[in-house]
Amino acid sequence: MKHYQTASLVGAILVALVGCQNILPTQTSTPKLIINSSDDAQISQQLAKQALASRLSYDIVESLTVEVGPRLAGTEKDIVAVEWAMEKLWLMGFDKVYKESVQVPAWSRGTAYASVVSPYEQPLMVTALGGSIATPVNGIQAPIVRFESLEELTHASPARIEGKIVFIDHKTERHITGKGYGESVGGRSRGAIAAAEKGAVAIVIRSIGTDHDRMAHTGMMRYQEDVPKIPAAAMSNPDADLINAMLKRDPKVVLSLNMTSENQGIATSYNVIAEVTGSSKPDEIVLIGAHLDSWDEGTGAIDDGAGVAIVTTAAKLIQDLPQKPARTIRVVLFAAEEVGIVGAKAYAEQHADELDKHYIAAESDFGAGPVYKIDFNVNPATYEQVKQEHSAMTLFGVEMGNNEASGGPDVSIMPALGVPVASLRQDGTDYFDYHHTPNDTLDKIDPKKLAQSAAAYAQFAYMMAQSEIDLRPLKQKEQQH
Amino acid sequence: MKHYQTASLVGAILVALVGCQNILPTQTSTPKLIINSSDDAQISQQLAKQALASRLSYDIVESLTVEVGPRLAGTEKDIVAVEWAMEKLWLMGFDKVYKESVQVPAWSRGTAYASVVSPYEQPLMVTALGGSIATPVNGIQAPIVRFESLEELTHASPARIEGKIVFIDHKTERHITGKGYGESVGGRSRGAIAAAEKGAVAIVIRSIGTDHDRMAHTGMMRYQEDVPKIPAAAMSNPDADLINAMLKRDPKVVLSLNMTSENQGIATSYNVIAEVTGSSKPDEIVLIGAHLDSWDEGTGAIDDGAGVAIVTTAAKLIQDLPQKPARTIRVVLFAAEEVGIVGAKAYAEQHADELDKHYIAAESDFGAGPVYKIDFNVNPATYEQVKQEHSAMTLFGVEMGNNEASGGPDVSIMPALGVPVASLRQDGTDYFDYHHTPNDTLDKIDPKKLAQSAAAYAQFAYMMAQSEIDLRPLKQKEQQH
Repeated sequence: MKHYQTASLVGAILVALVGCQNILPTQTSTPKLIINSSDDAQISQQLAKQALASRLSYDIVESLTVEVGPRLAGTEKDIVAVEWAMEKLWLMGFDKVYKESVQVPAWSRGTAYASVVSPYEQPLMVTALGGSIATPVNGIQAPIVRFESLEELTHASPARIEGKIVFIDHKTERHITGKGYGESVGGRSRGAIAAAEKGAVAIVIRSIGTDHDRMAHTGMMRYQEDVPKIPAAAMSNPDADLINAMLKRDPKVVLSLNMTSENQGIATSYNVIAEVTGSSKPDEIVLIGAHLDSWDEGTGAIDDGAGVAIVTTAAKLIQDLPQKPARTIRVVLFAAEEVGIVGAKAYAEQHADELDKHYIAAESDFGAGPVYKIDFNVNPATYEQVKQEHSAMTLFGVEMGNNEASGGPDVSIMPALGVPVASLRQDGTDYFDYHHTPNDTLDKIDPKKLAQSAAAYAQFAYMMAQSEIDLRPLKQKEQQH
Repeated sequence: MKHYQTASLVGAILVALVGCQNILPTQTSTPKLIINSSDDAQISQQLAKQALASRLSYDIVESLTVEVGPRLAGTEKDIVAVEWAMEKLWLMGFDKVYKESVQVPAWSRGTAYASVVSPYEQPLMVTALGGSIATPVNGIQAPIVRFESLEELTHASPARIEGKIVFIDHKTERHITGKGYGESVGGRSRGAIAAAEKGAVAIVIRSIGTDHDRMAHTGMMRYQEDVPKIPAAAMSNPDADLINAMLKRDPKVVLSLNMTSENQGIATSYNVIAEVTGSSKPDEIVLIGAHLDSWDEGTGAIDDGAGVAIVTTAAKLIQDLPQKPARTIRVVLFAAEEVGIVGAKAYAEQHADELDKHYIAAESDFGAGPVYKIDFNVNPATYEQVKQEHSAMTLFGVEMGNNEASGGPDVSIMPALGVPVASLRQDGTDYFDYHHTPNDTLDKIDPKKLAQSAAAYAQFAYMMAQSEIDLRPLKQKEQQH
């Protein structure tokens, strides 16, 4: 891993004042302890106050959800979103605005109908999981076999499953961290493989969601080369309850399933990028990201219009400072996160030669806030300094957490590439009520909480763009072996 | 109006004890003040305790929603519900169980698709209003014209409306009494007439609902003989918000609407009736009702499976008393309430010659409780006595209200026919979050609140079946003029 030079804070401010990079003093050794200048702490706090007082973040997510709406990767609306982002960022006056093409898988939801055929005829509310194939034109009719979890399915005898529709009934628990999602989502992403390996003809899961709305939660599922592809759908939580009530009365519950979803090859999308050019270390990057694509049934408000709004607002407030910070703030609106963090992987490839210049990266992709804690994944030797530097953020209710962050879905691939990351933890208590459903709409966003998240990101980005702490090398698995 | 004789309480208890109607003492004058015997108050409280401790009410609504589910009047599932009710009531051991045929309008929802065509293409979440005609096969595409309320539409110039899709944007306010529904529902029921009179080509209303779910609320709409019929739909609250956000950006918002709903003539349904035969005044009736039909998109849990469960449980607890009360308790599960209180009107016709024997009527059709207040509509001269008699109910948190009750949708036609009614007010704070949507499912019911409502109905029905107070004549408009 390459260590880069860091300019001193004094130098950074000096540059900002005199507008000249060539007189910069530099230092090559990592300082043992950095105390921020009172100026930086003051500017950070001022940024937070501005963010809290501003409607900008809400205006951005409103604009995206109203003027674009759903924007599934690889669709026409995805390109509308890219155009929206390019224009919006340009009009906001960032130093640089550009896009980078990404090849993304395209998929069409089509229709999904399911019903119980016996013991009691009832329609069910289902939706196709992202990437699923269709059923045969006349649908599939088969008894279901219920499993508590993907794990139970994994250990089940194929004799129980052959010719049946697998029903994974894993309830998602509510938690501020969203950890319940992590526990149940395997059934969605890997359930079709596990079911098909044992001869199932389809899989229908209980929605990975904490709500009681009669809406199914979509989300990506995967196939595996050597395993037959079977149709995969989710049913709403109330429908899963209904199936359980029927199973209590009769162990043989027969479902009918008809889906017309279709994979449609490869399409072009774009990572959209805006920059606040650093005043003294413009080639060093503080990346704050979100993803521009969304699922197709809501308007992509909490996932991830909110993230787009939060990081864009944070960067815009820094763009408008009279003195730009030392490093470049790079806003990356990733393409095609929902369908497999495709834009992020393309970014890592396309920027492979400057990843060592990424000082730190963070992504907002957990709803509309507020941020209550920051975790980092930085050099363990300097983590305490980072905490100290960011202690000003506690003024705005943001605690310092641990040094075990993944950084958010898109940037989660970066620590393995040596890039330090941070996770600005947003309150996810109700996130999975709406996530990946038609209910992901603007009304679920509280403008004040959103503004608080923008404040936290503005503070984080500014402090990181000014910091003299050396965040590398990471303590990471790849390096430990 | 005919006054009927009331047996004394002592006589009623005596009959219950000796099982003979012929030795009854009678009285023809209304007593000035009745104090319940301590026995009756004790039995009433015992009934309430039993209801609170019992799972019966929840089991009934679970059975109906799981084993039948949606049961739109005039459909096959409506008949499944009638069969379910007949069997359920029979198995519960009521003294009488029977059904009475009702001719009901049949209607098929079909599909409903809407989208914004300009200024920003977006799909909308809509549903047909009950009774609506279809659009032409290729749909309707037209600009919208927005109104705050039915009233504003009524006063608008036809020049603004001609050729457009009327959008009534009336928000429904949340209130324990549900009064917000009363304020906004006119746009649903009469909006198509008002819009068509002024040349509109269709009407799409903001859902009459207090939620923020991306689900549209259906419900009955009407046409008028001499006014053109236009298609009528509701959009979800988030979609109505979206339209407003677009209108702020561009006054010309063009919608596309395609519906295949269809009126399908007349079908046969049934009022299903069960009775606990009165011990001493079997021809006098305390009617406790609910409606058996439901809308088609949920499973009819809160509307009105809960009501079915509440009144059936109340009657069953009285059926199982060692001593039956004086009057007959008649449970009426009305047909086709949703499509125009059709079953109730048929009941009033079919029972015209015994309406004067209806001591009082009440209906549970406001969700799953709890009951917090009882209003009556009885003889003003004896109302204070009634309040006093029912004061035992305050032990279970049920207040005495006023003498202005309508009695619930189906029995609301009864006061005009001289029949006293009561309204056992259920907490409706969240009722219109789910009402007439796919979200009307079992998980919205709290078994304890449901049991509390059953307790209140059991107490009410018992006390009314035993009371010696003369509840007639009513002070009512028909009588005042």
